[in-house]
Amino acid sequence: MSRGSPLQPERIVRLEEAAVVLLDQRRLPENEVELRCSSAAEVADAIRDMAIRGAPAIGVAAAYGYALAAAHGEDLGEAFEQLVRARPTAVNLRWALEEMRLDPSAERARALHEGEVDRCRRMARHALELVPRESRILTHCNTGGLATGGYGTAVGAIRAAWEHGLVEQVWVDETRPRLQGARLTAWELETLGIPFVVIADGAAASIMAAGEVDCVFTGADRIAANGDTANKIGTYALSIAASHHKLPFYVIAPTSTFDADAETGADIPIEERDPSEVSSRFPARNPAFDVTPGTMIAAIVTEDGVHRAPYVASLPIRTSIGRR
Amino acid sequence: MSRGSPLQPERIVRLEEAAVVLLDQRRLPENEVELRCSSAAEVADAIRDMAIRGAPAIGVAAAYGYALAAAHGEDLGEAFEQLVRARPTAVNLRWALEEMRLDPSAERARALHEGEVDRCRRMARHALELVPRESRILTHCNTGGLATGGYGTAVGAIRAAWEHGLVEQVWVDETRPRLQGARLTAWELETLGIPFVVIADGAAASIMAAGEVDCVFTGADRIAANGDTANKIGTYALSIAASHHKLPFYVIAPTSTFDADAETGADIPIEERDPSEVSSRFPARNPAFDVTPGTMIAAIVTEDGVHRAPYVASLPIRTSIGRR
Repeated sequence: MSRGSPLQPERIVRLEEAAVVLLDQRRLPENEVELRCSSAAEVADAIRDMAIRGAPAIGVAAAYGYALAAAHGEDLGEAFEQLVRARPTAVNLRWALEEMRLDPSAERARALHEGEVDRCRRMARHALELVPRESRILTHCNTGGLATGGYGTAVGAIRAAWEHGLVEQVWVDETRPRLQGARLTAWELETLGIPFVVIADGAAASIMAAGEVDCVFTGADRIAANGDTANKIGTYALSIAASHHKLPFYVIAPTSTFDADAETGADIPIEERDPSEVSSRFPARNPAFDVTPGTMIAAIVTEDGVHRAPYVASLPIRTSIGRR
Repeated sequence: MSRGSPLQPERIVRLEEAAVVLLDQRRLPENEVELRCSSAAEVADAIRDMAIRGAPAIGVAAAYGYALAAAHGEDLGEAFEQLVRARPTAVNLRWALEEMRLDPSAERARALHEGEVDRCRRMARHALELVPRESRILTHCNTGGLATGGYGTAVGAIRAAWEHGLVEQVWVDETRPRLQGARLTAWELETLGIPFVVIADGAAASIMAAGEVDCVFTGADRIAANGDTANKIGTYALSIAASHHKLPFYVIAPTSTFDADAETGADIPIEERDPSEVSSRFPARNPAFDVTPGTMIAAIVTEDGVHRAPYVASLPIRTSIGRR
């Protein structure tokens, strides 16, 4: 299992001849176990069950799954449908599959993976201008290498800022119900040597009130033309708390996260997951995402640069349309 | 173990000749197990470890613990100190012990217990005027019979409103890290036959944005003269979200929760509990409470009636001073 850093892109997800191999994120941080998916259907299962998650990462995994299906002579129409339906909210999944439909080769899938990692590094460089010295940055869910196939969006920006000596500490929302913050972001920050503290999601507002937060960085699963941003449940509450405390709330996401067909957040489908993730005994609701209005977001950082409201004019939606 | 409803006051906590006996809330909802505490020190341990919790309930448990110490000839100064130090935030603990110091009899402790339950019923009647028909009420933590020794504060108000046909549904914040909502409030509402749905704390704001919440009811652990209210961590975030969505945020608490010595929330000590409740593996912070400014609270309901801002003039602080 030892292939250097657990955060190397090929450790997070890669294509082999007979399988898509990925680090099973459900088992982290306790166990670093690889999961081998031998068909597009098995990759779709891994995405649905969150063995791999994070909008850019599931796009990459789906691209590998499609390339695997092509190499094995599977029905590609069926492979496309299985993969695109695995999770409904992140638009990167459809974007990656539409790219792969034009060229279903292993090389194309690997280039798409490298492209996501490269976009993360570019986003991180752009985001540096938003980070003051000695920043105490609060983040939600996991947006690191695990979520993106390497480097990260919000965590990538934090990582670059840390390397530039700008970060004092990261506050990590545990992110119920699946605890991606407490399990995955904490594990990544520990691996990277960046100081952090995990808190219950409900504690973020009072930590802000105490003056212990300078800004909030999150990722995105889908962004509408007006800047409305679907992201992990709890993000919207955080944006309200940030606004109440006059703290800037930033979204870091690649252009593959933009949906030219969504005018506003109302056009974004929100996945409802199994209520048993919240309560195995009592009635529960389990929306996996919420929508933060563009008006609550101080800036959206893509690989192209820093975009500020009003977003309808400034966002790189054209790029997204052009690609689709 | 079968003594009628598990929510009867004497099932939640009672004084026997040799022990204070309480329903161990750490084991709920899976197991209804009684814990026997044979000394003031053991009662203090039960309070510290949250076998019994909720501001009014720990006041009652402490009163029984003090009466037990008196009956057994324990050093009462020491008993007072052990019990009052068990948890720092809820002021009811000190209030109940100061009452008991004047008359450390079993009868006085039982009267204090009955008094809390009676106050809950009176609060619930007053709160009815705040509840419109077909209300969808959101609540946080557990403020029911378990938290109060019988009936409840916020949950008591919900219970009375339900009996008057005013409640369509209750949204129950799971309330990390100890899950008092998902474990205890859900169990109580199920026992009472009141329809409810458990959600992750981070989901409350988006449920509000969807127009599915009409008002928020919470309890309190300590209330300052200006209405600033310490309550379970996550309450403050909820008050900000309610304010953002123009939803009324109500606090239901007996006068034993008021602290005449606290001018504002800044005077309320906030308990920091073991970080392992949040993360057993990574660095974590675990403030057990936060402070909601009185300015965010539409009304505070006590057994005396409905109090509205500005609270400095309207709150029954005199009563509290008079009793101490």
